Order: sequence, then C-alpha cells, then structure tokens
Amino acid sequence: MSELRSRADELDAADALATLRGRFALDDTVYLDGNSLGALPAHVPARIADVVSREWGELRIRSWEESGWWTAPERIGDRIAPLVGAAPGQIVVGDSTSVNVFKALVAAVRMAGEDRDEILVDATTFPTDGYIAASAARMTGRTLRPVTPAEVPSALGGRTAAVLLNHVDYRTGELHDLPALTAAVRAAGAQVVWDLCHSAGALPVGLDEHGVGLAVGCTYKYLNGGPGSPAYLYVRRDLQDRFDSPLPGWNSHAEPFGMRPEYAPAPGAPRGRVGTPDILSMLALEAALDVWDGVRIEAVREKSLALTDFFLRCVDAYVPGGRVESLTPSAHAERGSQVALRCAPAEGVPDAAEVMRRLIARGVVGDFRRPDVLRFGFTPLYVGFADVERAARVLGEVLRETA
Amino acid sequence: MSELRSRADELDAADALATLRGRFALDDTVYLDGNSLGALPAHVPARIADVVSREWGELRIRSWEESGWWTAPERIGDRIAPLVGAAPGQIVVGDSTSVNVFKALVAAVRMAGEDRDEILVDATTFPTDGYIAASAARMTGRTLRPVTPAEVPSALGGRTAAVLLNHVDYRTGELHDLPALTAAVRAAGAQVVWDLCHSAGALPVGLDEHGVGLAVGCTYKYLNGGPGSPAYLYVRRDLQDRFDSPLPGWNSHAEPFGMRPEYAPAPGAPRGRVGTPDILSMLALEAALDVWDGVRIEAVREKSLALTDFFLRCVDAYVPGGRVESLTPSAHAERGSQVALRCAPAEGVPDAAEVMRRLIARGVVGDFRRPDVLRFGFTPLYVGFADVERAARVLGEVLRETA
Repeated sequence: MSELRSRADELDAADALATLRGRFALDDTVYLDGNSLGALPAHVPARIADVVSREWGELRIRSWEESGWWTAPERIGDRIAPLVGAAPGQIVVGDSTSVNVFKALVAAVRMAGEDRDEILVDATTFPTDGYIAASAARMTGRTLRPVTPAEVPSALGGRTAAVLLNHVDYRTGELHDLPALTAAVRAAGAQVVWDLCHSAGALPVGLDEHGVGLAVGCTYKYLNGGPGSPAYLYVRRDLQDRFDSPLPGWNSHAEPFGMRPEYAPAPGAPRGRVGTPDILSMLALEAALDVWDGVRIEAVREKSLALTDFFLRCVDAYVPGGRVESLTPSAHAERGSQVALRCAPAEGVPDAAEVMRRLIARGVVGDFRRPDVLRFGFTPLYVGFADVERAARVLGEVLRETA
Repeated sequence: MSELRSRADELDAADALATLRGRFALDDTVYLDGNSLGALPAHVPARIADVVSREWGELRIRSWEESGWWTAPERIGDRIAPLVGAAPGQIVVGDSTSVNVFKALVAAVRMAGEDRDEILVDATTFPTDGYIAASAARMTGRTLRPVTPAEVPSALGGRTAAVLLNHVDYRTGELHDLPALTAAVRAAGAQVVWDLCHSAGALPVGLDEHGVGLAVGCTYKYLNGGPGSPAYLYVRRDLQDRFDSPLPGWNSHAEPFGMRPEYAPAPGAPRGRVGTPDILSMLALEAALDVWDGVRIEAVREKSLALTDFFLRCVDAYVPGGRVESLTPSAHAERGSQVALRCAPAEGVPDAAEVMRRLIARGVVGDFRRPDVLRFGFTPLYVGFADVERAARVLGEVLRETA
C-alpha cells in the first residue's frame, strides 16, 4: 500500500465526522459533485412517501394547515439559519436562486435611494447572477458595472446602490473575503447581496456576525435538498421593513387569505415569499436538513480544508507533471470546498471533457466546466480521505492515457 | 330513496368518465376542493419514489441528462399543451403562477412598445395577479388601471399596452369570454395575458384557436400536480422571438452551459425558463398528467356542466330558502367548474366559515372565501353525481342547525 493510501486510512480513522456518511444513500462511487447536486440523505425517501401518500393523498387541502405546509418557507428558513450564522426570523425558502437574486438586488437598490445609480456585480460570477443583475439594473434605471471582487473596494462610492457578490467562485473555488467586503460596502452606504450557493453548508458564513444585509443561496449543493430544491433569501432583521419586493405575490401579504385588492406586505421574513410554495421539493429539503443534527459547521470547515489539502497533495503525487494546474487558491482563507483543475488541451491526450467522462466511467464523479476545467467538490458530510486518494489516483491514471 | 338520489345514480351510471375516478387515491370523502388542490393520482407515489431513490439517490448528477431532468420544463409543457389547445413548443413549466404573471406581463408590455403607457388588470382578479401587475407597471413605467372584464372593451385604446385577465373568476366561478376579449385586445394593438388557473383541465381553453398571446396557469388544481407544483407559461409561437424576460436566468440562455457573461436568449419556449427547475415537484406533475390519457377535454367540460347544474338543482331542493345565494352564473357560457354560494350571516345560525367547518367534519370538503362565500369545485375526473347529491344534502342539514 502506498504512503498516501496509508495516510488516507489514518485520516479517516481520526475523522470525527466519518460516521455521518451513514446518513446518506451512497454506493462505492467517489462522489465529488456535491457542489452541484448533493447526495440523497437516506431517510428522505420515507419522508417524501409520507408527504405524497398521506399529506397530499389523504389529508389533501387540510395539509396546508394540519401538516404545516403553509408555514414551511419560514420554518425551513429557520433550519438553514444556524448553518449560515443567522438568528431565526430572517430567512425564507422558496423560488430559484435566480428569482431570489432578482428580489434581493431590486430591494437592495430601492433601499439605497434614488441618488445612487450604479450596481456593482462580480464579473467572475456564475452567469445567472450577472444576467439577473442586468435585468434588475434595467428595471430600476441603474447602470450595471462588472468588477472583480478585488476591485470592489476601489469601485465603491457615492454612486453605488448595491453590490452583488459570490462568497465562493463557482469555477475556481476561490473564497472571497465576506467580512471585509461587507464592511467596505456598508462603509460606502450601499447594500450588499451575497450569493452563498457554493459556501453554505461547506464553511461558516456568519451572516449576522458580519452585518450582511441580504443574501441568497441554493439548497441542492452542500445542503443536499434534492434536484432543484428551493432557494432561500436572507434579509437582515433591521432591513426587513424596508424590503420592497419586486415580486409581491399573495404569499408575502400581511393577510394572505384576506384576498384584499390592496397590497400590504407581511412583516418579517415572509415578506420575501411570492407564490404558492412547491411543497414536495420544500419538504424534501426540510427532511434533508436532519443530517445536520449535532453537526458543527466549524468542524465541517476543518474537514473540508483537510480534504482539499489532501487532494492537492495526492494530485501532486499522482498526476504527471504539467498536465493540470490548480485554479483554486492554496491559502485556506481563500479556498472554498472545491478544487478546480485546469486541464489544458494538448496533442494526443484527452481534453478536459473527455478526462471527466473517463473519470466518471471509473466511479469518480466530478464535473466539467468549459473550456478546460475539472471541478471536484468535497462534501465533508460524506466524502472521506480514502475517496480523495482514489480520485487523485484514478485522475493520474486517466491523464497518462492517450486521447 | 329520494328522487335526487335516484337521479344521481342514473347520471353516474351513464357517465362515460366515471371509471377515471379509479386513477386517483380517494376515500369516501366528497372532495369538492380540487379547484384548490387536486387529488393524488394513484400512480404518483411510485413514480416519485423512483425519482427520489433511483434518479436522485443512485444516478445523482447524471440524471440531469440521463433521466431527462434538464428538458423537463418544456417536455411537461408539451404535455399540458393539448389540454389548453396549444400546439407543442409554446409552453414551459416552472416557477409559481405569480412569477409567471410577472414574466408574461412585463414581456407583454415590452412587446407593445414605448408609447403605450397603460396596463389593464381584472379588478375582480385573484389578488396576487393585481399585486404583481402593480409591480410590473411600476417597473416598466406604466400606469395600472383595474377594470372589470366587462369594462375591458371600452377601456381599450391606443394607450393600452397589455391586459391581464382571468379566464375563470376564483371567487364566483364566472367564466369570462376569452375569444371575444382576446379579439378586442388584439384589435386595439395590445397584448393579452390570460390566467388559466381556474379553467385549465376543467374546460377547453383554445389558446391557439383564439389567438391568445400569453397565458399562465397553475398545475395543482384541475391538473392535479400536487401541492405547489410548478406553474406554466404560454407564449404564442410568433411572439417568442419578442419575448423579453424580466427574469433572464441561466436556464433561459441559448447556451446554458456555455457560462458566458453575455446573455443571449434561447429560442422557443425555453426562453421563459429562469433558474434550476424543482425536479421533484415537476416530475410529480409529469406523472400526474398521465390521468389525462385518452380523456377529451370537451367530455370533461360536458360533465363539469352537468355536475354544477345538478348541484344547483340539489341545493335548491335541499337548502332552506334564503340561506344561500349562488354567485355563479346560471348560463353555461359564463360558468367555470365551481359553484360559489354566498351564505350571509344571520342571528342564531352558523356563519359561512362555521358552515364549511361542519361540512368538512361530515366528509364534504369545499372551502371558504371571505367574507361569506362557500366554494365548491367540481373535478369531472373524480367527482360523481352521487357525491354532488350528498354534498348538497349535507349542506342542507348543516344550514338547518343553530350556531
């Protein structure tokens, strides 16, 4: 057995989170794509069967009250809250991330006032945030200015209405400095909207502690809510009364069943709701959050860094020199829970897309992002060190093959 | 046995759709709330179990391609299309009705051009449409003018950008004249957006035939998609290239996995998509649509009218005079698939809310809409004439009781 194999076994033996893997339905695949779609928690199928057959099938309409369907968006928001460092009453679940980016950014611009005419957006963002930010700018009469996160402090000024940033870059896995950037945006008198898709559930976010104003995130990556499970919206308590939604659906009304022609927004987190929540997806998410019982996000972060450190070490050892280059920062303070390897095309060897196909065929599942990036996500709840060693070893084998 | 009981049995015996009830998981409750939440189709639990345990649990990320998750929004749209009289390629499923009203109405206004500065909205609409229309007006710099559907023809003019109408009024069950109103709006050079929540699956809509431009609807009422199942958006084929979405999420991009910073809208129905679709809710809906196999919507309409006719006749016979008044038009051409009875408060008798509680306690499920409306929805796929007779009989009993 190689030194790295032995080291992996030692690390697994010492891993206090190792038993959490038993909470998931997994086979012997090395699943390094939890940053795209989290694995299935083992108890979710039984819960969903009950929701479908009993709550919908038997109780039918009564379930809106009796099964707690109506209050699910804010109840599940409160389950997510501790994972992102938020006190209760500030998070509501529903709609897609894109829709929540729109709500949050338009509301942020409206809070900032008429004289601030510019929205800053992370130029390296996941594209949907940029597209939606462009729509928000167009519809609020603001100018959209793409900047890198590093450029934000110097770009901020009296014209800045709002800033939309990603906590972790979806492509490179770079972790941006949420406390410092939030402080800079606040000092400039603007509102910040953080996209937590690639950080929530993988590392501490500290929304309340760092004074974040607004945040959104998906729940199907490190929160394991299932394919397309609903996203969430955080609005800091002291901003909730000023949250002026561009999507004021009846679910956000102070008295939703009053059926009044005049709109009056609900107080608190439910103000971020829109239409009828998708209950099946939402209750799958609620059940999925049970896997966090007794888990500290700080311990998850510690293991996450150990996993990515070990992966980079194994890649160094197993992969032929020059075939890949890590796009992920080596400094812990700048690293999320994924490693992105650029796999540049070369004569006679498989390109990145083909490399990923071959990895998947051998039971190592990551994903490919154009044009040449191999992306590996490490979910500390169910990925172990032996998985990491095997992934790097198989990658080394594939990279020795011809096209 | 009373004359009405015998008549109910005759009608049930002659009902060509009677066997469809076997496609649903139902007990001996008289379920007249399918206009709020459709009953569970019997085969949906097994399908959802497979989606959760195999597609998510075993295939995980591969299901986006291998299980057809990615193309579900337009594939399921094409399943809904024949029920609302649309050719394939014009309907996409996803998001809530409220979010789709926003997309459709903003896009309609943009199609109409800068010089048209007014949006007409059904003043008697389900409130969310009015709230969202107000936001769409605010964000596109238009004025919102509430009018009754009857007032629309005279309110139309050179200033009209778009008109948002309900096919069937959620409260009274009144069916509006979609062909005539659509023609009037088109003649005025404006765009119409129809909300089909209370008509789709209950009666023929004829979107293509009547030249409707845009339409939205939910899927959890007469389409039985499950609690909060995703809504849909119809954009007539010749308008699709002009559909300029206010929510241009990455799923609506011409090349969603190109991850390009510049937005380029997809052609066709997928242009109406936004973010990652909620797969569990969406595939429950897809399975639920199987109950329509071999069912003609014209036959459904015929039975629907027979059911509501018979209900009104039974109410006349069983309910003490003066205790309720039907808000639902007696003319077939003006009636959807529900009957709304106003139950005015009076000394010593239960009020409408209490009447509905007592009905539900005796196995007759309708719903209550403030301030004094008892609402009964008739889903021809699973409601029979004996159900109707029993509902009216129990209503008569309750209305003879003291408060």
